[in-house]
Amino acid sequence: MNGFSEEQTLSLVAQIKDWQCFPTPLPRAKFQQALDIQETFNRLYCSVAEDEQWIHDVIQEIIPVEPLAAALWSIYEAARETGYLQNISVGIFRSDYMLHLNDGVEPRDPGAVFETSLKQVEMNTFSASGGSHANKVGNMHRYLARTGVYNGRDNFLNISSLPKNENIESLASCLALAHTTYGKPRSEEARQTAVLMIVQPNNFNIADERPIEYALWNRDDPVPMYRLEFGADILEYARLTEDRVLLFHPPWLASTEPVEISVVYLRAGYEAEEYDHVGWEARLQLEISAAIKCPSLLSHITTFKKVQQALTAPGALERFLSASDAAAIRETFVPVYPLDESEQGLFARKLACDPVKSANYILKPSLEGGGNNVHGAEIPDYLSSIPRARWCSYILMERIQPPIQTNLLMGPETLNSGETVSELGILGSCLWQSQSKQTSDHRCQMIHNSVGGWTFKTKFADVDEMSVVKGYGHFDTPRLMDF
Amino acid sequence: MNGFSEEQTLSLVAQIKDWQCFPTPLPRAKFQQALDIQETFNRLYCSVAEDEQWIHDVIQEIIPVEPLAAALWSIYEAARETGYLQNISVGIFRSDYMLHLNDGVEPRDPGAVFETSLKQVEMNTFSASGGSHANKVGNMHRYLARTGVYNGRDNFLNISSLPKNENIESLASCLALAHTTYGKPRSEEARQTAVLMIVQPNNFNIADERPIEYALWNRDDPVPMYRLEFGADILEYARLTEDRVLLFHPPWLASTEPVEISVVYLRAGYEAEEYDHVGWEARLQLEISAAIKCPSLLSHITTFKKVQQALTAPGALERFLSASDAAAIRETFVPVYPLDESEQGLFARKLACDPVKSANYILKPSLEGGGNNVHGAEIPDYLSSIPRARWCSYILMERIQPPIQTNLLMGPETLNSGETVSELGILGSCLWQSQSKQTSDHRCQMIHNSVGGWTFKTKFADVDEMSVVKGYGHFDTPRLMDF
Repeated sequence: MNGFSEEQTLSLVAQIKDWQCFPTPLPRAKFQQALDIQETFNRLYCSVAEDEQWIHDVIQEIIPVEPLAAALWSIYEAARETGYLQNISVGIFRSDYMLHLNDGVEPRDPGAVFETSLKQVEMNTFSASGGSHANKVGNMHRYLARTGVYNGRDNFLNISSLPKNENIESLASCLALAHTTYGKPRSEEARQTAVLMIVQPNNFNIADERPIEYALWNRDDPVPMYRLEFGADILEYARLTEDRVLLFHPPWLASTEPVEISVVYLRAGYEAEEYDHVGWEARLQLEISAAIKCPSLLSHITTFKKVQQALTAPGALERFLSASDAAAIRETFVPVYPLDESEQGLFARKLACDPVKSANYILKPSLEGGGNNVHGAEIPDYLSSIPRARWCSYILMERIQPPIQTNLLMGPETLNSGETVSELGILGSCLWQSQSKQTSDHRCQMIHNSVGGWTFKTKFADVDEMSVVKGYGHFDTPRLMDF
Repeated sequence: MNGFSEEQTLSLVAQIKDWQCFPTPLPRAKFQQALDIQETFNRLYCSVAEDEQWIHDVIQEIIPVEPLAAALWSIYEAARETGYLQNISVGIFRSDYMLHLNDGVEPRDPGAVFETSLKQVEMNTFSASGGSHANKVGNMHRYLARTGVYNGRDNFLNISSLPKNENIESLASCLALAHTTYGKPRSEEARQTAVLMIVQPNNFNIADERPIEYALWNRDDPVPMYRLEFGADILEYARLTEDRVLLFHPPWLASTEPVEISVVYLRAGYEAEEYDHVGWEARLQLEISAAIKCPSLLSHITTFKKVQQALTAPGALERFLSASDAAAIRETFVPVYPLDESEQGLFARKLACDPVKSANYILKPSLEGGGNNVHGAEIPDYLSSIPRARWCSYILMERIQPPIQTNLLMGPETLNSGETVSELGILGSCLWQSQSKQTSDHRCQMIHNSVGGWTFKTKFADVDEMSVVKGYGHFDTPRLMDF
């Protein structure tokens, strides 16, 4: 539904009457499993974000070869040098899953979706997007289901099989809680506090961001939210007081009175190119301010694939979680290997360079985000095309083998039918406090920990990427099936 | 804001940063006065709608010369002949007002808006539109005000001066109440009841109608609503049982089970051209059905200007209201004259044909809707261009002299500043029951009577028409002023 408003989509759907955009089947038990473990995932990643030493051990190797890792780590070091004033952070996370077929199940078997286990694709802890789109597409499918458009073809669709989606409200609630937690203005220059959303210029995510902004303003107790572009605008319109309170001067206000920023919600700063000298200074200014960050720099770094891989190592989860929680999380992991010179790494290099064995793997840059992955048999050639010194910045992940379904996918210009696969995202929202340095307990103190909602994307099965913004993935709603 | 979604408008507003779409000042006391008398206006028009004899006396003269009046009255007679099964009706009304300058006040005086009285332009009892647009534009202005965009220029705008607009929710609530009042299916063929919205084909009102539909579906106890085009589709997809229960077969459902219609909400059927043979039959089928109509045919007829004029006659209001209620209503009336051969009519004909005196009047066809009015000095020539036999189908209304303000108006393609005038609409929502024939009391029994919300339109002062769909009027939000 990329690029369409809810209304435009409905109008299109009305025009094509006999063509229906069906929600895609998903076993209710797997959906519930993903919801059930989200709070544990939230707690895990909050705990990791508070464990500087562990993070540094994990990413130190890639810092010399990955500019984004280098930029973020150097900003973190500068911030640590200055000293942190704020020990509370907010997380808006999204854990992505696919169904993975049990051994021997044919992907096109009619009941294949039930012969699967839930496997994590990746964890996003920074600028997690798609929540508002999923909310609106969920509303659309529920509306269409209620009007009965699906029942002409088949009586299969009951409204109770389409889960409600309240992402917008729940993400706004989390930010509002952080805003309240920050409390009253600390600076004498300001009378009002506000949340500041940091966005990219020429932003294709604006329609995903705006609903959260409106929801904050529309609360019974309205929370002001302003938008500011990453980079130079931060240095121009926001400044730190002597006490490092972050003051924002909305450029459209003639008033000389600034607004004090309670929460910085980052929806920009996830690409190496953004960290030129100005971007570097801007991010540092935000990081060392008294504002609550959504999220902190260390929490940002946990979104790297390298962290995901490190957490699959034996015993890693148990550093942060109880044995039973660790087991529930580990159940969703597929094998992920480093590609460094450790024993595991050397083992993985053999797999990756093998023209046959590599078919079962995906090579991923250890940074976040999709689109730069190398799939299966293309891996050996790719690896031989890059300097061996850079290999350590990749991870090798076993391919998830999803069940294949058929559906219609509507893009900005076309509507096509074909074989599809889907990806479920679970949004987590949380607020946590650093433990005092004295404690040897690596678990952080959760102030708020909840499931924010879900996203669901579907793409044609022969396309490797799920990216919606690039036109491959399509927002969808799961049709929950009880078997 | 005609033609723009809320989001597009916000995006435009963001682009033009220094140009601000200001809400237009309106004295808070006048706004409150209009809200306060709406329930009385609702009750008045419900009572009129139950007084067949009075209505017939008022419109009989225009039936021979006005095709819409002829069509509606003949359908009413046919329905009466068949007999009414449903004695409950719903009304979604809109009473429109302008501020009228006190004698001697200059329209451009800075304080002129406070030297005014509230005067009714017209009462719409059929297909009253604009509620959803006003709701969204109100949200937009409140959003912009909260973000502080207006304060750069002037510190005048506090959020409490922009009234909340909840039209969509309140109109949906009224229809939901009617739906509940209808009760369970009466036909054995149906298991489900639903509201049916009758719409025009190629409908420019769709964006005003859809939000009400979505609000019904989205209630905690969802109310199904379907759309059906006026005319042939009604005869094809809806039918009456022997007991005249209205059954709807959604064309997109293969299921043979129909839906029983609880409430028919008419957003079409207000133009003479719609009443060809098929349109006539279709409207009759709806009218004689057991469904609750929003509104009934007689209630539709009360929207004629001829009824508005008749209610200004001495003693007319007292037929339906207590003396004090009648006085509150009459306070909002400007002189309105018939143009027939009565004593008043002959007096008005002199005014209308006088090239000087006519300047202070507007000639309106006695039907509803704007766009066919003749203004001031153009009246004498216009009257001499039409057959004298048709004069009786017009009314002559004293011109309201509004205060002149200045503002920026944003249309689909342009943004211009200039002198403006505004019109306030108050939505009324009500449910009423016919009194039994025996009573001599003309007052009807109100089951529900409330203010639905408001609309506010602004146009350039040198344009006579307020029509938004024709591009003259612009949706706006009142900035309530306490003086």
